[in-house]
Amino acid sequence: MLATKVDYLKLVDEVDNVPYNPDFFNDLYKFFLPGDKRPHGFMLPETVGKMPWSSGFKVDHRLKFVQFVDPLDGNSVEDTAQLFAGALQKTIDTAVDQDLFPNLHGMHSEPYKIIGAKQTIHIERFTASLFGIATRGAHMTAYTRAANGELKFWIPRRAPHLFTYPDMLDSTVAGGVKATHSPFQCIVEEADEEASLPADLVREKAKPVGVLTYMTRNRKSGLVRPDMLYVFDLELPEDVVPKPNDEEVANFTLMSLEETVQAMSRGEFKPNCNLVMIDFFVRHGIITEENEVNYVEIISRMHRRIPVPTSPGM
Amino acid sequence: MLATKVDYLKLVDEVDNVPYNPDFFNDLYKFFLPGDKRPHGFMLPETVGKMPWSSGFKVDHRLKFVQFVDPLDGNSVEDTAQLFAGALQKTIDTAVDQDLFPNLHGMHSEPYKIIGAKQTIHIERFTASLFGIATRGAHMTAYTRAANGELKFWIPRRAPHLFTYPDMLDSTVAGGVKATHSPFQCIVEEADEEASLPADLVREKAKPVGVLTYMTRNRKSGLVRPDMLYVFDLELPEDVVPKPNDEEVANFTLMSLEETVQAMSRGEFKPNCNLVMIDFFVRHGIITEENEVNYVEIISRMHRRIPVPTSPGM
Repeated sequence: MLATKVDYLKLVDEVDNVPYNPDFFNDLYKFFLPGDKRPHGFMLPETVGKMPWSSGFKVDHRLKFVQFVDPLDGNSVEDTAQLFAGALQKTIDTAVDQDLFPNLHGMHSEPYKIIGAKQTIHIERFTASLFGIATRGAHMTAYTRAANGELKFWIPRRAPHLFTYPDMLDSTVAGGVKATHSPFQCIVEEADEEASLPADLVREKAKPVGVLTYMTRNRKSGLVRPDMLYVFDLELPEDVVPKPNDEEVANFTLMSLEETVQAMSRGEFKPNCNLVMIDFFVRHGIITEENEVNYVEIISRMHRRIPVPTSPGM
Repeated sequence: MLATKVDYLKLVDEVDNVPYNPDFFNDLYKFFLPGDKRPHGFMLPETVGKMPWSSGFKVDHRLKFVQFVDPLDGNSVEDTAQLFAGALQKTIDTAVDQDLFPNLHGMHSEPYKIIGAKQTIHIERFTASLFGIATRGAHMTAYTRAANGELKFWIPRRAPHLFTYPDMLDSTVAGGVKATHSPFQCIVEEADEEASLPADLVREKAKPVGVLTYMTRNRKSGLVRPDMLYVFDLELPEDVVPKPNDEEVANFTLMSLEETVQAMSRGEFKPNCNLVMIDFFVRHGIITEENEVNYVEIISRMHRRIPVPTSPGM
């Protein structure tokens, strides 16, 4: 039994904070990919108005949607996807060059895949939220298990100079999934870069254990974004010690369960990392139906069915 | 790599088969508990019409809801709950006595808790689906892990004389959660009754690992019901062999992963047990983002946010 009491549902509420009432989406513009009837994003009206749409994009203010229309009749699906990708990039280039959106800070970012698209189409990571397009992260929890069964967690503190969530606690290894990588490849690479964990060890021992899905509305910008976190467990022998290997991590601490839960209750974790810990606690029988009144709600909310496609054929 | 290819999403579709479009619920009557603004069930209009409501129940055909109204002004919340419970039981007694609903077969069934109610209120298990009230099951997967890491599963075949799903494969141990029991207590008791697994062993080794939530519309009756399955893992030493101990199980077989997946692909499992296996495969890294295109959708769908309360304060 833990001495610390945490309102886990409140921690979930902070991250999954878009209403479940479908009327919420009536105010947003749907963003469509060419030849695809499923919306891939949901945009704020003010973002639609401010976006420097390049030619080919059609904005329908009555039915509230944005879609790229191929100017060339009879193009193949692949060629249209190429044209669309080019037009999207041109739009983003203009937005960055003219510094139109505060959340971009006038900077470009790495290409990510648009998940669930029928063709391979990339979008710059930090522009995805302007279009309400889902991005993917990968988070791994490294832990040790003592002979008596006691679990401890390798918890990093983010570097003080980081732009987002400086000094906060984080998942052992975490990163956004670049267009060229699978979530597992992301974890293998980040485990080396952030924690000096050998790729061979991670490839052999890291276990994919699910995906967390939720929707976040940014409190400042109001931008609405579906998110997917692929989660991995890594049980480490007690003699393997993660060490920072880049400038993003200040240090690692091996924390007891009680210390970890205390830090969660004090709001010391980057908010979406709380979900990764809660999911770990559920899968390892630490949070149970018998000790958590909101058990069902917490678990459903961390696996929200997001309103954008997550596979090409869906 | 498994030789057998299974359409896991199709197996999920069979069980979670109520549309996500909220318009679906417009045709149904909401069933309210006294003093609670959250609907606890969704009823078919024909069931509402046929139900022999006892006095106190108010049916509103315009706004489509049923609610019990306490005839005595100024009753305490607890007294009103008592009156409601009595009126509900009287309604059910009449329905059973007059054999009004084919799914009851003119029989009474065990009391279950109405989950998420602010007071303790029971409802007979097999009548819950008439009111669209959620019930709870508990399912445990017992497995062995060989020195080389290979997993095998103890899979029971249901007895041929069973009323529901005779001869089909099942979760190692499974049962409905009676009003007097927690899901864990249910598993401990059923593990003895169905599989001759000693209570001490189960209490020590069974691990609660989550809850699956979904909504099923019965293909024959059209009845709509939210369901919750509390899931448990039990890793067994190779020398512990489950044996039938009541008349519900015909036999147990220790099946390889490949054999288990083959049986799933052939439709040999009781449908909701497929979800329990799929969830096991996800949590144990057997189904992954890299080998299953519908990974995100499958996981979200098995953790559906059901439209009824799952805790008193929600």
